[in-house]
Amino acid sequence: MTYCLAIKVDDGLVFAGDTRTSAGVDDVRTYNKMHITEEAGDRVFVILSAGNLATTQWILNNVKRDLADPDAPVNLRTVRHMYDAAEYIGTLSVRAQKESTAYGQYSNVDFRTTLILGGQILGEDPSLYLVYPEGNCISVSPETPYLQIGESKYGKPILDRIIRPHISLEDATRCALVSLDSTMKSNLTVGPPLDVAILPRNALKITHRLRLDLDTPYYAALKRAWADSLERVFRDDLPKFEWETSQQTML
Amino acid sequence: MTYCLAIKVDDGLVFAGDTRTSAGVDDVRTYNKMHITEEAGDRVFVILSAGNLATTQWILNNVKRDLADPDAPVNLRTVRHMYDAAEYIGTLSVRAQKESTAYGQYSNVDFRTTLILGGQILGEDPSLYLVYPEGNCISVSPETPYLQIGESKYGKPILDRIIRPHISLEDATRCALVSLDSTMKSNLTVGPPLDVAILPRNALKITHRLRLDLDTPYYAALKRAWADSLERVFRDDLPKFEWETSQQTML
Repeated sequence: MTYCLAIKVDDGLVFAGDTRTSAGVDDVRTYNKMHITEEAGDRVFVILSAGNLATTQWILNNVKRDLADPDAPVNLRTVRHMYDAAEYIGTLSVRAQKESTAYGQYSNVDFRTTLILGGQILGEDPSLYLVYPEGNCISVSPETPYLQIGESKYGKPILDRIIRPHISLEDATRCALVSLDSTMKSNLTVGPPLDVAILPRNALKITHRLRLDLDTPYYAALKRAWADSLERVFRDDLPKFEWETSQQTML
Repeated sequence: MTYCLAIKVDDGLVFAGDTRTSAGVDDVRTYNKMHITEEAGDRVFVILSAGNLATTQWILNNVKRDLADPDAPVNLRTVRHMYDAAEYIGTLSVRAQKESTAYGQYSNVDFRTTLILGGQILGEDPSLYLVYPEGNCISVSPETPYLQIGESKYGKPILDRIIRPHISLEDATRCALVSLDSTMKSNLTVGPPLDVAILPRNALKITHRLRLDLDTPYYAALKRAWADSLERVFRDDLPKFEWETSQQTML
């Protein structure tokens, strides 16, 4: 499995993901799941991937091939709208799966891949799309300002509690890291290092790109601060049951 | 689905669960999933259930039937050890599923149920067992001091961070409630009211039994305090990125 997520707040977009790829517990590798295409000042796209690695690489290679081909009917440099980019990626994804299935129809392999495409094109709002293996897509909304792919359940509650459109890009990034950290603690198929990219609204370039391992000072400090804070909240900040307070009164 | 959990700490056991039962999104009901058998001063058993409701009720009715039958070869009053109780419940579970499958072999219904059995028998330590649909069981350990059944992923990270053998029964209970609350926020098949039971070590009776709805004052206060605390942690307690601090210095 994998766990990647992208968050849209008023100030822009945050992307984060793990790097563990596994084809069984004895075949574990590290792969970058975050792919950035930047035409600084005009457009930025970030793709996050979860699913069949060969399908994902087929898509990414064809994205590159189309970018280098002046005769390509559509590529990420020529699409007018973010929605067109999402449709284009979806079409590539379906083609990749179709080819693999044609050759691999007698195997039980799952060729599907699910993608998050996010970014901004000059003149448009930043936006995020979840591209399903079937090639169709959905975008975020103000009520649902984040998207997740892969092993999404462990890290969802903290997003539901913290992510609001008005929070800063940095708070959204910290929340994404806590969400990833919680998932890594509970599920072995999600593992470090973690990748982060921050795309502020109208910057039209990735302003911060981080790779965080367990011993990277910032990430180690974040993990410690989060663990300490939660313990303190449980010790000091949650309401006591009535029998606890009455016991105290009786002392 | 369902979400129930049980926690073992040095001071005793905590049981908690939701009450939502669904056979599809248009067939949602409320059922108690926590079943207590108490022989105060001698033994206490708590059963939590997730899975097929008919199977669960078959098991519980047979537990009762055996308790009332002086000729029953084994029942919860006569078992010597908690492990024997877990094996007994597992045997009942397998029998229930076998009967249903014999009659319902042409249907696609899933007759399985997964149970948590916890409690204490005089002279033994308190203990918790997860009884699989196959009738076998596993117990908690000091390294894994809690058990979950049903929709367990959303609520697992907070347990991993907070539950340690030395924490109080009340802190364990608050953690169980936060775990349930996070799950209810993210998954519609888990719903209020919530049931809680606390069995202190060597009390040999349930000392606190709570049913908490969304507007029960304690639960409402806990939810609010938890949400406020997390927001405060994000605002004040997590480390800043280096570019945030350098921006501050430059002001």
